[in-house]
Amino acid sequence: MRTATTYRAFRTAKRQEIIDITDDVEHCRQAADIAEGFVLVSAMHISASVFVNDHEPGLWADILDWLESRIAPWDVAAYRHNAGTGEDNAAAHLRSLVMGHEVIVPVTQGALDLGPWQRVFYGEWDGQRPKRVLFKAMGE
Amino acid sequence: MRTATTYRAFRTAKRQEIIDITDDVEHCRQAADIAEGFVLVSAMHISASVFVNDHEPGLWADILDWLESRIAPWDVAAYRHNAGTGEDNAAAHLRSLVMGHEVIVPVTQGALDLGPWQRVFYGEWDGQRPKRVLFKAMGE
Amino acid sequence: MRTATTYRAFRTAKRQEIIDITDDVEHCRQAADIAEGFVLVSAMHISASVFVNDHEPGLWADILDWLESRIAPWDVAAYRHNAGTGEDNAAAHLRSLVMGHEVIVPVTQGALDLGPWQRVFYGEWDGQRPKRVLFKAMGE
Repeated sequence: MRTATTYRAFRTAKRQEIIDITDDVEHCRQAADIAEGFVLVSAMHISASVFVNDHEPGLWADILDWLESRIAPWDVAAYRHNAGTGEDNAAAHLRSLVMGHEVIVPVTQGALDLGPWQRVFYGEWDGQRPKRVLFKAMGE
Repeated sequence: MRTATTYRAFRTAKRQEIIDITDDVEHCRQAADIAEGFVLVSAMHISASVFVNDHEPGLWADILDWLESRIAPWDVAAYRHNAGTGEDNAAAHLRSLVMGHEVIVPVTQGALDLGPWQRVFYGEWDGQRPKRVLFKAMGE
Repeated sequence: MRTATTYRAFRTAKRQEIIDITDDVEHCRQAADIAEGFVLVSAMHISASVFVNDHEPGLWADILDWLESRIAPWDVAAYRHNAGTGEDNAAAHLRSLVMGHEVIVPVTQGALDLGPWQRVFYGEWDGQRPKRVLFKAMGE
């Protein structure tokens, strides 16, 4: 079994942002030199997500609007977490839970085994500060 | 380490549909002939899901209603993705994100290590066209 | 490749409850004696979740309130699953789907490779009865 572990740091310009990290997944696969296996992609923060979806800016805007309007409004006063800790990011925690914080990308015959439209994204829900994503490839 | 990778194609009669694929997971385990390890089950599309839950048709109907009424209404005019691309399936993308697109099924002592009621499902959120799911078993 | 599989049983005092199980993940890692790999943590029930987030009681209360008020109200009469089976826990199934039932914790250089605030939790959505979580470590 071969493994490789890489990290990518982010400091987004906006507080919420969606970033395509598919190329980083492939770089980690190459670092491990695996032809069969997988790459685990995992946000190392509890106010961020990693997910697979479409490379389409309209959809990214839809996701940000939908998280705010329907899933977990930022509304600072609505959450005990904010009241108790002095933070304002409870909604970012909930968004991380809904969107998930990790994906497993399969590797088959020396390539990421993604469908035709599948790309891997980092979703920042509380940015403008240093954050990290872990990539771990395992296989043969 | 032994691996096996299989694929199953779907073309659902209805646009939204939930299909039990647990037997396919076990077939992939058998193809890899593993006793310890896991099977990754991953939708290869960004408008579909793979999830673990109950083999109970009432619940499947509840899931479809809940996605429509509470989580991500189909409402074509509400999404930038639809306006910008001419598609109508932005809601299917959001449903894929909420329900997830992959699961890892543990394999222990030569069998899928699922709880008594756990079954694996493919959730089609934009069907009536060809779609695929990947199964990848890894272990020993 | 080395593996270890452990289980932890729960019988929560309250019907909904969030429990930190990070130490169990580390114990499974130690049982497998792996320095590189991962630990799969998977609820064996369809009315429970496993997720990664913050060890902060205010946030745990926020999560329980948010699941009830915004994501999947308990409302017994609203679901076909309850009508058809005589159960009352359809909302617990939906909460399991939103929050996810499994996580993969990376292991690097002999330790769980979690970010500074990341902890692993069991989310019980229909407790006061016996439930189980599986931990499976794999690596080298």
